Amino acid sequence: MSEPPVFDEGFARQFEELLRWRRDVRRFKRDAVPVELIEMLLAQTSLSPSVGHAQPWRWIPVAEPAQRAAVQESFGRCNADALASYEGERAALYARLKLEGLREAPVQFAVFCDHGTGRGHGLGRRTMPEMLDYSVVAAITQFWLSARIHGLGVGWVSILDPDEIAKTLETPPEWKLVAYLCVGWPEEEGDVPELVRAGWERG
Amino acid sequence: MSEPPVFDEGFARQFEELLRWRRDVRRFKRDAVPVELIEMLLAQTSLSPSVGHAQPWRWIPVAEPAQRAAVQESFGRCNADALASYEGERAALYARLKLEGLREAPVQFAVFCDHGTGRGHGLGRRTMPEMLDYSVVAAITQFWLSARIHGLGVGWVSILDPDEIAKTLETPPEWKLVAYLCVGWPEEEGDVPELVRAGWERG
Repeated sequence: MSEPPVFDEGFARQFEELLRWRRDVRRFKRDAVPVELIEMLLAQTSLSPSVGHAQPWRWIPVAEPAQRAAVQESFGRCNADALASYEGERAALYARLKLEGLREAPVQFAVFCDHGTGRGHGLGRRTMPEMLDYSVVAAITQFWLSARIHGLGVGWVSILDPDEIAKTLETPPEWKLVAYLCVGWPEEEGDVPELVRAGWERG
Repeated sequence: MSEPPVFDEGFARQFEELLRWRRDVRRFKRDAVPVELIEMLLAQTSLSPSVGHAQPWRWIPVAEPAQRAAVQESFGRCNADALASYEGERAALYARLKLEGLREAPVQFAVFCDHGTGRGHGLGRRTMPEMLDYSVVAAITQFWLSARIHGLGVGWVSILDPDEIAKTLETPPEWKLVAYLCVGWPEEEGDVPELVRAGWERG
């Protein structure tokens, strides 16, 4: 085992800047992202915490045009339903929001939690079985920060029907969709959440 | 809005070291942790991503001896049940694991998700309501990394009965327990998960 690293004040300050400038990105350039960079980021997910060391995350690239079209259709349906659930000014505001970059983001992943994994031997999830899903969320959070270090934006799309996504990607029945991620170079960078700038919620 | 920061290769390397040396810590020194450090870490959670910018995390300090005793009792019951669910060598191995630092960790939090919050106006959680809980997990993940930068270890205890914890802390019924965290100075540091070192799961 090597010597524990020491993180100085400069690193702590830069880390806080990273937290501040990580954003949910919905406006992407269409420029390609180097395959090696994505591979490095995916390899790094093995360093994420997971209950029982189960590592239940399954990152499925979504690249085929037919698959992407199906995801966009699912978003369209779910977003229309969501819009219909608001009234008056809130509905008008919702209609103006840009909530995803599904057409532009060059790299996209559906991230699942494998509830069929034997890894971890059930440790730590007898009374709180949701811990397995939470392990996938932790991996996504770390991926998000790592991506931003390298200038990549990540947008987490949840306005989707998980069953439709699973059917489109033909995933095993014991896999649960945790997130759909758009990844690419952001059109603009900011340290204020887009929903705050758009007036949806205060900062 | 200020200029976007640029993170260089040195920072990226140090960040990977941070991921590698963030561990689930169960062995703590009893030394106190400065209140200001904990306050800074909690303030930083406002930079975490959350669905609809709902910020649904509620960090409840658990410091009173009676509360801590109740948490330890809940762990004792749940852990005995868990042990009884294993057989043979796996049971013997489970019995030898140290899974929490509830008696030693100087700082402890129960972290809840407030399902009663009006913030976010439901955005992004119509088809995936679990997004609200996931927002709390993201905040905990970032807290965990920030704590490690400052030398603090965090241990996530899930072998608990969420209803017992909520009753002990008298939290509102619409709050859901997401995590119980032990925080303090680690007795030892490592870059290999304790469950791997103990032979529970391979690396």
